[in-house]
This record gives sequence, structure tokens and C-alpha cells, in this order.
Amino acid sequence: MDDARDPAPRSEPSAEAARRHLPLAPTGNSSAARVLDDWYVVCTLRELQALGERPLATQLHGTPIVVFRNRAGEVGALLDRCPHRNVPLSDGSVDGALLRCGYHGWAFDTEGECREVPSLCGQAEGKARTVQRFACREQDGLVWVYATPEVEPVREPYVFRWMRDSAFHSGMESFEVEGTVHAVAENALDVPHTAFLHKGLFRKAGGGNEIEVVVRRWRDRAEAEYIGEPRPPGLAGRFLAPGGGVVQHFDRFVLPSITEVEYRLGERSQICTVSALTPLTATRTRLTAVISFRLPLPSAVVSPVLGPVARAIFKQDAEVLKRQVESIERFGGEAFASTELDALGPQILRLLRQAERGERGVGRDEGEPAHEHRFKMRI
Amino acid sequence: MDDARDPAPRSEPSAEAARRHLPLAPTGNSSAARVLDDWYVVCTLRELQALGERPLATQLHGTPIVVFRNRAGEVGALLDRCPHRNVPLSDGSVDGALLRCGYHGWAFDTEGECREVPSLCGQAEGKARTVQRFACREQDGLVWVYATPEVEPVREPYVFRWMRDSAFHSGMESFEVEGTVHAVAENALDVPHTAFLHKGLFRKAGGGNEIEVVVRRWRDRAEAEYIGEPRPPGLAGRFLAPGGGVVQHFDRFVLPSITEVEYRLGERSQICTVSALTPLTATRTRLTAVISFRLPLPSAVVSPVLGPVARAIFKQDAEVLKRQVESIERFGGEAFASTELDALGPQILRLLRQAERGERGVGRDEGEPAHEHRFKMRI
Amino acid sequence: MDDARDPAPRSEPSAEAARRHLPLAPTGNSSAARVLDDWYVVCTLRELQALGERPLATQLHGTPIVVFRNRAGEVGALLDRCPHRNVPLSDGSVDGALLRCGYHGWAFDTEGECREVPSLCGQAEGKARTVQRFACREQDGLVWVYATPEVEPVREPYVFRWMRDSAFHSGMESFEVEGTVHAVAENALDVPHTAFLHKGLFRKAGGGNEIEVVVRRWRDRAEAEYIGEPRPPGLAGRFLAPGGGVVQHFDRFVLPSITEVEYRLGERSQICTVSALTPLTATRTRLTAVISFRLPLPSAVVSPVLGPVARAIFKQDAEVLKRQVESIERFGGEAFASTELDALGPQILRLLRQAERGERGVGRDEGEPAHEHRFKMRI
Repeated sequence: MDDARDPAPRSEPSAEAARRHLPLAPTGNSSAARVLDDWYVVCTLRELQALGERPLATQLHGTPIVVFRNRAGEVGALLDRCPHRNVPLSDGSVDGALLRCGYHGWAFDTEGECREVPSLCGQAEGKARTVQRFACREQDGLVWVYATPEVEPVREPYVFRWMRDSAFHSGMESFEVEGTVHAVAENALDVPHTAFLHKGLFRKAGGGNEIEVVVRRWRDRAEAEYIGEPRPPGLAGRFLAPGGGVVQHFDRFVLPSITEVEYRLGERSQICTVSALTPLTATRTRLTAVISFRLPLPSAVVSPVLGPVARAIFKQDAEVLKRQVESIERFGGEAFASTELDALGPQILRLLRQAERGERGVGRDEGEPAHEHRFKMRI
Repeated sequence: MDDARDPAPRSEPSAEAARRHLPLAPTGNSSAARVLDDWYVVCTLRELQALGERPLATQLHGTPIVVFRNRAGEVGALLDRCPHRNVPLSDGSVDGALLRCGYHGWAFDTEGECREVPSLCGQAEGKARTVQRFACREQDGLVWVYATPEVEPVREPYVFRWMRDSAFHSGMESFEVEGTVHAVAENALDVPHTAFLHKGLFRKAGGGNEIEVVVRRWRDRAEAEYIGEPRPPGLAGRFLAPGGGVVQHFDRFVLPSITEVEYRLGERSQICTVSALTPLTATRTRLTAVISFRLPLPSAVVSPVLGPVARAIFKQDAEVLKRQVESIERFGGEAFASTELDALGPQILRLLRQAERGERGVGRDEGEPAHEHRFKMRI
Repeated sequence: MDDARDPAPRSEPSAEAARRHLPLAPTGNSSAARVLDDWYVVCTLRELQALGERPLATQLHGTPIVVFRNRAGEVGALLDRCPHRNVPLSDGSVDGALLRCGYHGWAFDTEGECREVPSLCGQAEGKARTVQRFACREQDGLVWVYATPEVEPVREPYVFRWMRDSAFHSGMESFEVEGTVHAVAENALDVPHTAFLHKGLFRKAGGGNEIEVVVRRWRDRAEAEYIGEPRPPGLAGRFLAPGGGVVQHFDRFVLPSITEVEYRLGERSQICTVSALTPLTATRTRLTAVISFRLPLPSAVVSPVLGPVARAIFKQDAEVLKRQVESIERFGGEAFASTELDALGPQILRLLRQAERGERGVGRDEGEPAHEHRFKMRI
């Protein structure tokens, strides 16, 4: 009776079965997407180290996941449920090479294998005692987890484009916001809202310039290029182009959940904001933002100004995204009416739906865009 | 691509569709009713004016509604959801003649037509950008909204019977209570509970007078007439009939949600309480109460006494109504056993159900009552 | 129109119908059991007396129940819902021999019969006005209620084994914990967790003794006998066996929800903990614990030490049980993998399921065990 099961039939401990019962799919129409065959940031390495012997509890697409770093420095990510009596493993503690549950002391390695069942005379290992494990990577000071358990990843985590370039200064911050990955990404890449929601901080309303926008979509990404855009008002604009002028501006979405906003003036001035979005649940998103810049000003002057402005803008976005989720929940689903100004939102949704169905390739799509259109925007 | 929609199918932005998803119909047996072809008080004009540029957020039958007054003094009531990205319009602000969303700055007139889409080069108006609007009236210092959107009302709002009569002094107060319109109306018109719930404030228990009650129901209203009722104890009774005596007492319910309680002694003494009930949700009701009186005493003596007593009585009613809702929710539905003492409750439910099915006429029913019965009550 | 009903069809006021709507059965796999033909502790007699005129509100298997003691000292247990307008009877008060509702003053005897409807000229009694009543017993200072309404109990409440024996000192405490009866009982009777969850308070991890455990199950109970167990470390162990030695140790579960833990050394030293578990809801349990001991030390020395240790252990158990419920809810059901160390958990579940299906007899099963097995445990 080594691997005894309870007389009652018990659900298979598969993540799929577990997820079926989780509140992932809001009723009604929703832009929430479940792209499972890709990597997401779960925490910074520093957050994990600060916890010491305690593991970190998080979620991916609503699935509870425990992340821990053992004494050998290996990082593991397991389903956050002890297979014995189902208490969260994140309530336990790291013990040498193992993560030990706090209830009966069962202990697991980074592969999810059960290595100790205290008081048991037989062997500890057993199929029913194994916890699902998720592939893990440390990269750029972040812990990335692959959203499908028990498989070898088919791709590598996203590399932050300007962060590794020594010509740039980079700073990183993390937040949690209410909102689907789609809503948060669309917000991060949207131009028109900046004149209203961020009045005074960023653009201003009623600008009279008519500029051209080119929208392109590949199998793995989409971008909007703004042609003839005058320098944005506000401090960031003044840092970028102290003498004014027309800037180069690209907004990009990269599957599964990366946003890139790139402003450029000539060869020497560039401010780029990249965010990696993590779908904690269908409507709660972790946002890991990296601002990278190279400017003809010392970074000691730029950073103390750029940080607070970015945080103020972010706070306003987080508030409106929260209200959007609440309103959609009250109405039981989304009912969005888009215009051409919503340059990337509909493209992002198309990419997410394709990726959910497994219809994108594995590497970067280097071919011609599958879609391209142009329109005019008053700015 | 002017009126572009997202690739995902989107629900029609009809109130009907929206309401399907709202938690309106508690499971199990319920007296909650959805009479949609009539007017309800949403706020006082004063409440609206006090908000300045901010609009007012409310609900009718669970449908979120934004009410605003533009600079021209016109009042509008719209579905509280921007058709663009679904944030509440009540988070926006009044801008001249328009209500402007705080996210991307879309702006709507009192008819719900979209008049401005900032940054857009084409025209702002468009079918998919129109918000549902509800007919609005200012009357007696109150804003009334018709519960069906996009239609011309088939009737006028209720006129408070004694409020416009200069022989009466009137005071108005508003509250929100837990409870269906049925439960709140039945409570407002019920006699037997006053001796228990309001012990000491109103009637007292164990009265020995046997009086006759006549119950009548028309297509649009029901009433209970109390014949031979002695002056009620308590201050209100003493104001009404300082020398005692037999009073005239009528309790009335008028569709869709009006209660009238009328006490009279001779030609000069009369105290009347009228409440207009607003179904915010199936089980949350706004109560707008007007107490009107004419008495052989100066109103400066009567008002300071009548107000606190009324508020104390109301507080006890609100508490028991809340407990009633909680208990019904715990049991998953209502299971009421009525006696003949429940003179008006069953009549109110019948009227509400008929009105829900559209089986009442439009004007006041001046014919013979469709139903009449009598019974004795010990008081 | 004496027993008038509302025009709307009304649910039958049966407990069965009421329970159908209550959140008793969590979705997914669950060890929650509904053994209805047995007795459960609802409160201590002292708790009831302390309330004076106020009745006590509780639940059994999610069914709201009001318990009251009238002026004659009779205890009654009724469905906690006035049949008239469904407010909780537990909001009312005891009035002589009756429990009176606080809304309209209807008053009920301990059998659930309606005896007074104030203001009514006809008789108060009536089928639709009767409240369901549950059989009640006062025993050992506790009020026990039979979980099926309107029937004559087929058995008597459990008698605390050592409490009535004058050779023992006994103390009683009550708590509420999150967890099914199964999870709480299994926890109370489980040995291996004590070395981890209660580290320092009770056993310690990594003990090297191999002992034998005999598991037996009858129709009405199950037990685990530990053979060759050394004295547990900690204060309780030292009280029991100051000079060390091998103790006798039995853990027992008795239907419907009793746990007994018995430690014995020779004829004079014995510490026994008995808990009666009450399923308030599917996942909330009241635990009434009686610790009985006879030791060669004065109870004035033992009690002040045993109490705080027991409470500290209990607090840790309550915390882990709460986390277990939360985790199971997050995953939508239980997925337990047991080993032979889970000596009684699977046996308890089997007994509960048999009892739910009515497949146990009425009296104590004095025959041979239906099941017996042995295994080794390292301790």
C-alpha cells in the first residue's frame, strides 16, 4: 500500500484539469488570451534572493506556481500544491536542495520529484507524489517561467533590446495592474489617450499636426511607425530633442506579451521603454518595465527626472485599466468599438488569437509583413 | 477603416444584452420585478448640481447609468460605458455641451451621439460610437429617468400628491436600502409590524380594538382603507389628533413603485408620507420620501419633532429589510407565508407582475376596482 | 383568506429544498460529507444561558438554525427563518415559552408551532406558519442537535468517554476552523505532521524508531494502534511518562464526527483528547475538545501547562487547515495522494461515505473489524 489513494476518485493532478476550474475565462466577450507555449517573467532574481529560505508564490494564467532557489543556486518552478494534502508549497521552506512542505514535511527537488516523505519506511519517490514542474530561466536579472508544465520549451525568453547595449543607461521597475495582457499592451502602445489621461505630463490635447501612421503585422509581432511626428511636449520630449524637430517613433508588440516604445532623434538621442507583461490571471497582469536611453546629457541628470514622470504616467494608466476591468465585469463582457486610431489594439488581439491556436512559427518572422495599412492622425 | 471593429466578435451594445449578464435575477423564488416602461427617481437636482463638472453614476434595474447636466443646463442620462474601450463615462467630465470620457477623450451629447474623437481625421459620429440614452425629466426638484433606453415614454413621471399644494408643508429625504421594491413598498405600507419593530416609536403591541380594513385593487394601484382606527400613539398621533378620536387612514401603492400613507382627522389635520422607490438592482432600492402635513400647529414646532422620529423609524426598517435580503440569499429564494393581515403585499406583487407583462393601461384607472375584499384587524 | 399565500408560486419550506440552494457542495472532488441522521454539538449550555433573552444563531451542514432556551428551561432548535417574511428568527427574542420574531411579532414554541400572530383575529396556528424543528438534547453541558429536521432520532448523542469518570480531570474548549470534518478529523488523528507543523511543541523530526501500526475499521468507527511507541518528547510526554518508556497509544474516529486520541502508561497515567466536530458548512467546522487526564501529579500543576501547549498546537493546525481549504478552492477540488502513513484519513472517508448512504447500523458494532492492516512507521 505504498502509493495508496483515497477511496474517493481523485482528479488527475494535471495543470490542465486544475486550470479548468480556475476563474480564467470571464463570461462574455473578452480579449483575455492564453498563450501557453512561451516564457513570462515571474519575478526579479533580487526578489527571490531577498526571501531567503522562503519560496515565492505567484501565478501564470491563474495557475498557482511556487518559485524557489535552493542552496546550490538552482531555481525551480513547481505547481503550488503539495500532492499529499494540497496545501501550498509556497507556505513551506527551502531545505538544502529541496523545497519542503510545512504540513507533513514532504520535500521536492527542482524537477518536482518527491525526495523525502518523513516517517515513511519505503521509498519517497512515486508518480502520484510528483509535482508538475515548469521550465525556468534566469536572464537579465529576471526569472522567466515557461507557461506549459512538463515540456521542453520550443523558444527562448525575450531579450530586452537595448538593455545589454552599453551605449544605453537602463532602469527596471515592476508593477501589478488590473487588466488583460491585451488591454495593458494596447494602453502601453496607444498614442491618442496620452493627451487626455496624461494631460500635462505627456502630450497635450488639440494638437494640429496631421501625421502619417504605417501599421505592419508579421506572424510574431506588429508595429506602428509614426512619420513626421513633432517632438512630444513634456520633459521626456525636451531631453530627447532639446531643439525640437521631427522624431522617429515606433510602437511594437512582440508575442507573447512584449511592448516596445522607441523614440529616436538622429544617431545619438534615443529613449526606449520595453515592458514584459505576465498574465497572472485573465485580468491581472504583472508589468516589468525597462527604460533605456542614450542622450547627449549625463544620466545623473536624466534619471532623477525621467523616473518620477514615468511613475506618475504609470499610476494614471493603472487606475484607468482597473476601471476598465470593473466596468467590463459589470457588463459581463467587452463591447469595444475601434477606430483607425486604435492602430495596434486589433493587431495585438489577432496575434494573440493566432498564438493561442498555435498558428505562429517558432523563430522571428523575417519576411514581408502579412498586413500593412496607412492612415492619418491629428497630433 | 473608419468604424473598425476588433476582429473578435463583439456583443451588441444593447442594454438588453448588457442586462442579461447582470446579477438581476436572484436564483429561486423572488419578488424582484423589472418594470421597464416607467419613470424612476435617480437623484435630486441639487445632488447633480453639487457635482459641478463631474457626472453622477447610478443604476436602474442593475444597468449602470450616467446622469449629467451640461453647461446649457440640459440633463442627459446615458448607459455608463464608453463604446470605445468600455470605461465608465461617469469617470469623465462635463465639457461644454458634452460629456467627455477620461481615457481617450471621446465626447457625447445628451442624446448619446458621439461628437468628438480626438486625433481622428474623419468624422466623429458613427452608429457603433453612439451610447444608449434614457429619457430624462426634471420635476419637483428631482431627476427622473425612464427605464427603457431609446424609446419615447408612454407616460409621465408620478406627481407627488401633496407637495405642490401650498396648504401643506413638505420635506424630502433620500436613502438607499437593501430590499426589492416589493419588500420596501410592503414594509412602508404595513401596519402590524409597527407595534413590534417600532415599539415605543409608533404603535404599541397588544391593542384591543378590532377595526375593519377594505382592500381594493385597480389596474394601476391598490389601497387599504382602515375604518374605525383610533389615533395612533406616539408624537405623530398626538400632532394629528391632540384630542384623540378616530382617524381616516389610507395606504396606497401606485405603479411602478410609489407608496402613499395618508392620515387625516377632519378637514384641517393631515399627515402624508409618499415614497418613490427606485430599483437600483434587484435587491437594492433608493427611497425618496416626501412627508407633507397640514396641522393646526406651526410647522416650526412640528418639523423638528417629526424629522427625527421618521428617521429613527426608517433606520429600524432599513435594518430589518437588510436582514430579510441576507436571509433570503442564504436560503436561495423567498418562501413567504402570508395572512390576511398582509393587506397590500400580495396585491403589490400582482400589480408588479402584470406591469412586467405589459398588462396595465397607460392612464389612471378610473373604473371600479378589479378586486375588493374586507377583513378585521386587532389594533 | 386565513392562510393566504402570495400569488407567486412559493418554494416549499422544507429543509431539503432550502439546502439545495446552499453552497454546501464545493465543485470538484471533495471530502465534505453530509451525514444527516446523527447528533452534533451546536453550543455549550453556558453560551446559551449567557445570551439571556437572545437566541443563538448557528448552522448545521449550511442550514441556518436558531437555538433558544425558553423561560421554562426547555431548549428548542428551529430552522432560522420566520415563515412569514423570512427574516432570521435569531434576530428575535425569547418571550416566556415562545421565540418571537422581531419584524411582525410572530411567536413559536420549541416544536416550531406558531402560537401568536399579533393583530390577527383568527387562530395563529397553521401548517404554512410552522417552522421546521430539530431534535435537541442537553448532555455533558452541551447542546446537541440532530441534523435531520422533523424526525425522531434513531440514536443518542456521543458520550465523552473519560469526562464522566471521576478519576479524570477534564477541561473543555471550543473553536471554529476552516476545513471539512474529514480534514479536521484526519489532522487531529495524524501522527507524522506533528514533527513538522508542531516542531518543538510535540514530536521532533528524524526520529529513528521503527514502530508498528495496526489499523482497524468497524461499521461505526476506525482506530490506529501504535505498538512500541517511545514516550513523545515535549511536556505532555514528560507528564505522562516522567521516566520515559513505551506508551500505549490509540487514535480513533467514531461516526459521525468524533476523534479520540488516547495515551496511556500503565494503570495510573493517561492523557486523552476527544473532539466532537460539527459541520457548520461543508468547509467550516466547530471543534469541541475535551482533554481528560489522570496522572500521578496534582491537576493544579498539570492544567496550567497542558492548556497553553494544547492551544499553541491547535493554532498551528487551524492555520494549516485554513490554507488547505483555500488551496483546494483555488484548484477547484481536492487531489490527495495518500501513503500508508495516512493511517486513518482514507478510513474516515470510507466511514463518512457509508454513513451518507445510510449503510451503517444503529448501535455500536461489537463484531470483528471489517478491515485490518499493519504497517511500519519511523518515529
